[in-house]
Amino acid sequence: MALSDIEIANQVEMEPIEKVANKIGIERKDLSLYGDYKAKIKIDNEKLENAKKGKLILVTAITPTPAGEGKTTVSVGLVDALSKKGKKAAIAVREPSLGPVFGIKGGAAGGGHAQVVPMEDINLHFTGDFHAIGAANNLLAALLDNHIHQGNALRIDTRRITWKRVVDMNDRQLRHIVNGLQGRVNGVPREDGYDITVASEVMAILCLANNITELKDKLRKIIVAYNVDNEPVTAGDLKAEGAMTALLKDAIQPNIVQTLAHTPAFIHGGPFANIAHGCNSVLATKLALTHADYAVTEAGFGADLGAEKFIDIKCRKSGLRPSAVVLVATVRALKMHGGVNKKDLGPENVDAVIKGLPNLEKHLDNIQNVYGLPAVVAINKFPTDTDAEINAVKAACEKLGVGVSLCDVWAKGGDGGLELADMVVDLAEQENNFQFVYDLEDSIEEKLNKIVQKVYGGSGVEFSPKAKKQMKQLADLGFSDYPICMAKTQYSFSDNAKLLGAPKDFTVTINELKVSAGAGFIVALTGAVMTMPGLPKSPAAERIDVDEEGNITGLF
Amino acid sequence: MALSDIEIANQVEMEPIEKVANKIGIERKDLSLYGDYKAKIKIDNEKLENAKKGKLILVTAITPTPAGEGKTTVSVGLVDALSKKGKKAAIAVREPSLGPVFGIKGGAAGGGHAQVVPMEDINLHFTGDFHAIGAANNLLAALLDNHIHQGNALRIDTRRITWKRVVDMNDRQLRHIVNGLQGRVNGVPREDGYDITVASEVMAILCLANNITELKDKLRKIIVAYNVDNEPVTAGDLKAEGAMTALLKDAIQPNIVQTLAHTPAFIHGGPFANIAHGCNSVLATKLALTHADYAVTEAGFGADLGAEKFIDIKCRKSGLRPSAVVLVATVRALKMHGGVNKKDLGPENVDAVIKGLPNLEKHLDNIQNVYGLPAVVAINKFPTDTDAEINAVKAACEKLGVGVSLCDVWAKGGDGGLELADMVVDLAEQENNFQFVYDLEDSIEEKLNKIVQKVYGGSGVEFSPKAKKQMKQLADLGFSDYPICMAKTQYSFSDNAKLLGAPKDFTVTINELKVSAGAGFIVALTGAVMTMPGLPKSPAAERIDVDEEGNITGLF
Repeated sequence: MALSDIEIANQVEMEPIEKVANKIGIERKDLSLYGDYKAKIKIDNEKLENAKKGKLILVTAITPTPAGEGKTTVSVGLVDALSKKGKKAAIAVREPSLGPVFGIKGGAAGGGHAQVVPMEDINLHFTGDFHAIGAANNLLAALLDNHIHQGNALRIDTRRITWKRVVDMNDRQLRHIVNGLQGRVNGVPREDGYDITVASEVMAILCLANNITELKDKLRKIIVAYNVDNEPVTAGDLKAEGAMTALLKDAIQPNIVQTLAHTPAFIHGGPFANIAHGCNSVLATKLALTHADYAVTEAGFGADLGAEKFIDIKCRKSGLRPSAVVLVATVRALKMHGGVNKKDLGPENVDAVIKGLPNLEKHLDNIQNVYGLPAVVAINKFPTDTDAEINAVKAACEKLGVGVSLCDVWAKGGDGGLELADMVVDLAEQENNFQFVYDLEDSIEEKLNKIVQKVYGGSGVEFSPKAKKQMKQLADLGFSDYPICMAKTQYSFSDNAKLLGAPKDFTVTINELKVSAGAGFIVALTGAVMTMPGLPKSPAAERIDVDEEGNITGLF
Repeated sequence: MALSDIEIANQVEMEPIEKVANKIGIERKDLSLYGDYKAKIKIDNEKLENAKKGKLILVTAITPTPAGEGKTTVSVGLVDALSKKGKKAAIAVREPSLGPVFGIKGGAAGGGHAQVVPMEDINLHFTGDFHAIGAANNLLAALLDNHIHQGNALRIDTRRITWKRVVDMNDRQLRHIVNGLQGRVNGVPREDGYDITVASEVMAILCLANNITELKDKLRKIIVAYNVDNEPVTAGDLKAEGAMTALLKDAIQPNIVQTLAHTPAFIHGGPFANIAHGCNSVLATKLALTHADYAVTEAGFGADLGAEKFIDIKCRKSGLRPSAVVLVATVRALKMHGGVNKKDLGPENVDAVIKGLPNLEKHLDNIQNVYGLPAVVAINKFPTDTDAEINAVKAACEKLGVGVSLCDVWAKGGDGGLELADMVVDLAEQENNFQFVYDLEDSIEEKLNKIVQKVYGGSGVEFSPKAKKQMKQLADLGFSDYPICMAKTQYSFSDNAKLLGAPKDFTVTINELKVSAGAGFIVALTGAVMTMPGLPKSPAAERIDVDEEGNITGLF
């Protein structure tokens, strides 16, 4: 029987984190240890800005399906392969959220022989970043309601409060609440609700801040409500940004852990990939680039969503520039794009693979011709894949003149990604023609149309009456030059999750537009986005246990 | 101008925590570092049980007044004085709560030259214990509401849910809420509310658990609701205890930091001193005793409340036995007990001091004759105290045949407590006649009467009709043999905050009785207890700031 992720992880003896960090020249004095295998890195902004920079490798994927693509697994395998090749390499990826661990799936930190460890710690509290983000978010909420309770000098309209409280838990009971009940000493009654912590704008801000001064400045700009004259009320108006920054003083320092092959792994920040930009922190990526010659990172969902936001939001705000892109595909996902149901993915079906390839081709075209970056395709191998199916993908890539490599990192770790590593090294030496999808000077409508037409392959955007009104309001408030953060289904290039493959001639309907004024982007919602998950009928929490020695079981 | 606490703290260069721990024989391999100056200690239960034990010194106080007594300051000064005398000494005290830091007072970690450091960290997140406790508490709440949402097989009565969510924030808006609103996919509508994290039963449980197995067992027994047949529903019925224990796996390990004189300080756990027992964790106290010859600890509020619970709950459940008790008094507080208003405390008033002495005498009598322990009085010096006032206190103590020492630890650190240290060392060698106030076999009513008659000096208890009914229910459910946790005003021996001094001939009215079945005590409420504070008109949060280098200002 195959070993589980946790069993594989437990077979490997971790190296002390000082030793891991030292591989890329990070000294003991620059570390704040959190136990023996985790550390935070004391940020030296000058060093970050002046360092010779390595090559940034972005790992993205074709349009995701329930069959899975394994972006993190490939990213971990790739960085281990680069290390095996003697390259100074590091990975920068997102921190997992605590709430979902108790729901359906357990933890998330790669898989098989391509994992980051210690996985229990990474999935449970880790170094406390998400709790700190939750506390900063909830302090702002407490200050807001206290302001109203104490006389409401800012004349906040209690029906137009946009700031919610958060908790890192899947708790549907908190989605919609009424609080401030039971009389004048207990607040002011109003409708309210909770999001999960990763959906907090504080999370997006922490991940986009280049330093602590910028963090405080972004926190200050958060819009928490509108007053009775429809003017925005900010965290700065509540004098909240200093105390919030104090709560985030340690959380802004990137965390370092290791892969199973002891390669340095920066795991830091984890904003939602729909209402936020879905990438690990700018500081973690910069730190990886400063200390390593190759920094591997990933972006949420497929290359239409995650990579677009990585480029138009994260790169634009930080000055980061990728040198090469790895597009992860699986035979199973291509078969689904080719029309096969999830339950029928077992048997060989080369025709379906071929029918699914246009999805891969459109993503490749985007990476090369819209984003202007060199690309390579990584086929993440599954046991059910047949040679004929794999060869169909390879043949298509060769026809397109793009490199393709079969990755077996789940089973073999870095050894399963050596060919990919060679290709990436070559690719990163190529000249590239990096470009944004739109200019900040474009109007909100122009930006949206460019994303839909250039990246999604649609004919353009339509607006709900509400969104039209909001677009005007945002322009009036001076937010026209903010980049766009698309909140769209990840399962299709379009806004219809059922349109697989590479659909054409569709329009995307913008239902709602709202600004994350602190994070610095306009969120364009094409449908309802769930920002507070629930627990299933039989939650994973019921099967998690701890023995007398403190060993956890049932987490994975 | 006098220096502030933070300025005094910043003048002292901390020692690396490995070096501090090593002073009492804790090795580097037993530490999980959290940065350079904080660590958690890996628990070895066998070592804890089998070690040669030091002397346990309990610091308590006369009935508190708004003038303050400074128990923590005296405790820190005492342990530093013991160290200066060449004794192997350590202190074990509570962790401060995050929420109040943003309210009126800022942080709490001793004062003047008798502080524990790093104070910013201790007051902000520290090692994440309280966030872990909050997460475990809120996971249980999410599992409870999810159970109801998914069909309510346990037939929970949604009007009789006793488990609240918590957050470590002063947030009155959350005291009374209605949640589960907006339709069938969003939970089940019901009345609910939040407590501050330190009021969570999980906090009390963590502080009373002798090991991780006991922790899980206590969590399992928590009563979260009653079903439609009035039977208790527990965390175990929801299969929550394993996942909750996983969340608390690190939090149960005691934290070590240092005093300004580099004496080891265990700071761990901080349950409410009214609805819970108000002491740091059993494990931290045991660890201090195992490694040091003198372990100084404290209990919340005055000796009638904190010390009584320390003895009847913490010592009873853990096997801990104090060797000596320090009763902290201040001239200012004695003057208030003697009838002086807070604003008139400046001028000398020997008569008022003398009039206030019966409060001190009653506490001393309790310590010596009810608890059966040797005692010494520590006068915590304030700049306004006059020699005549201090001499009045000393004369009274001498007449009673009890040691008394003027402590100037706020101004002088350990040097201000050398005489007290000598007295404590002598006292701890005396034989003592340690005894509990009541037996577990006593009925609930007998226990309550013994506390009121023996410790408070009252004539007995009365019950509200509600409490009478609850007492019968608790007996029927089999909780008669649980110890009592009194939730009474800390400002008087009686249940009337205005009865200062040493009142007599009063009865105490029990308004409500409820069981903390996991923590293992029955809470007897004599009045309303606020379990979710609010923020003031001008919250301290508005004045907290962080500079470019990450230095925090405005916290103290």
